Amino acid sequence: MSTVIINNINDVRKNVIDWKKSGLKIGLVPTMGALHNGHASLIKKAKEMCDKVVVSVFVNPIQFGPNEDYDKYPRTLEKDRELCDKLGADIVFAPTPKEMYGENKKLSNTDLTFVCPPYNLVDCLCGKSRPGHFDGVATVVLKLFNIVTPDYAFFGQKDAQQLFILKNMVKDLNLNLTIISCPIVREDDGLALSSRNTYLSPDERKSALTISKALKQIELSYKQGITDTNILFDAAISVLDKNIEPEYIEFRNFETFEKVTEAKQNTLVAIAARAGKTRLIDNIIL
Amino acid sequence: MSTVIINNINDVRKNVIDWKKSGLKIGLVPTMGALHNGHASLIKKAKEMCDKVVVSVFVNPIQFGPNEDYDKYPRTLEKDRELCDKLGADIVFAPTPKEMYGENKKLSNTDLTFVCPPYNLVDCLCGKSRPGHFDGVATVVLKLFNIVTPDYAFFGQKDAQQLFILKNMVKDLNLNLTIISCPIVREDDGLALSSRNTYLSPDERKSALTISKALKQIELSYKQGITDTNILFDAAISVLDKNIEPEYIEFRNFETFEKVTEAKQNTLVAIAARAGKTRLIDNIIL
Repeated sequence: MSTVIINNINDVRKNVIDWKKSGLKIGLVPTMGALHNGHASLIKKAKEMCDKVVVSVFVNPIQFGPNEDYDKYPRTLEKDRELCDKLGADIVFAPTPKEMYGENKKLSNTDLTFVCPPYNLVDCLCGKSRPGHFDGVATVVLKLFNIVTPDYAFFGQKDAQQLFILKNMVKDLNLNLTIISCPIVREDDGLALSSRNTYLSPDERKSALTISKALKQIELSYKQGITDTNILFDAAISVLDKNIEPEYIEFRNFETFEKVTEAKQNTLVAIAARAGKTRLIDNIIL
Repeated sequence: MSTVIINNINDVRKNVIDWKKSGLKIGLVPTMGALHNGHASLIKKAKEMCDKVVVSVFVNPIQFGPNEDYDKYPRTLEKDRELCDKLGADIVFAPTPKEMYGENKKLSNTDLTFVCPPYNLVDCLCGKSRPGHFDGVATVVLKLFNIVTPDYAFFGQKDAQQLFILKNMVKDLNLNLTIISCPIVREDDGLALSSRNTYLSPDERKSALTISKALKQIELSYKQGITDTNILFDAAISVLDKNIEPEYIEFRNFETFEKVTEAKQNTLVAIAARAGKTRLIDNIIL
């Protein structure tokens, strides 16, 4: 049976209720669409672990800042459905903003109930330059969880801070599901896959490649015995193309998300940087 | 079988999973304990509508302000269990704060994921004098919903703002359950039942009685054709004992929670006032 697109919350619920009655395990892959091989790896993992797989495709307005790329974000629903079909997903859930947030409401905390992750996890890394972003992410993901009631939900390690915040939400709010994190998928030359890569001009793409190169350089230096994060930071900066404007390069304990000054096994090295107007992120775990 | 007290989240979940497998309808009555006949009416309603009833008893630290009565709040767990037993509830879920919020965390928005109801619903009535209160309420109630996964959850109309905020949360976060509101239960002389009534001295109790009298006065004046809320407000104030310090008397549309200047059918009249140090609330719907 080919993958169907469902726009309506109640129709998704009906499917889910039937599946639950039959004791089937449900996997959810929340996406903003413009699916690439990174998403494909999540869907494949979901197919491995679950009987039924829902891929949500929703460009979530409440996680975009006023000057961000909500309008411009790529929307390729029919292509997305074809990929989901090829990979054997059961449903593409593609609601409208109105279906998700109702009518006659301002999409802000004056009118909507929000999920607010802890300040300590939000006021750093990407959260510092994107105020409100992770509130918007946590809120829509909780809504999707409540609609689809998955046993497993699949997220990419590329959005490391998001992943940590969502795992934390599951624990804090006693959600009865497990979050599965999947490794970053890269182009052959090392560039981390991102729906935003389509924004890059050929020159910008060439420059952007030095972002993953900078992380590789940190890994190399670490393997040579350097653990001082200041020195590792400088090593990364020296590799970055001059047209790449770094926003942060940070070293954090992957388990606790606390900043570290000495790199060790399981240290997350996360970077955000701009190539032209395009904001890109990447990370490695040492 | 007599009602058991369960302190542990996983043990509640085990019961719930078994019930769900048998297709039983589950009712949840969230309380802070010190149960009175108001709570009893909720439990009775839950018994009517559901196959299994869980009463949670948890004095929730994150909904109390720093100068409020968290420490002093009455705790009468064994008596509560006896009442639940008499009414045929299946489980009293009485977790510790540690069980609900974990260890090594500050119980604030620096360390915990919170549910934040819309500012428009929070920044008024009780929310104005109790900043953060409804965030704490919404958060613990969502946690209880996720633990017990009820089909129906029962709340008293006495906490009218809370009720409205929680109904709103259910809609905004796509929770798959229905909130049932139950009428205010009063002493024979009209005082609305509250666990905090135990704080009142005999004199304070006598004064506190004029709170429900003030609401009655509004109802009477309204029935006589007065709809101007300023005049109704004055009518209420004239009835209040001089030892009662009103915090607010407000007129709101019961469906939308918007302020009204003309009282009509379905106008909620809500009052908060202090008798001595004890803060009391009450309301009527015209």
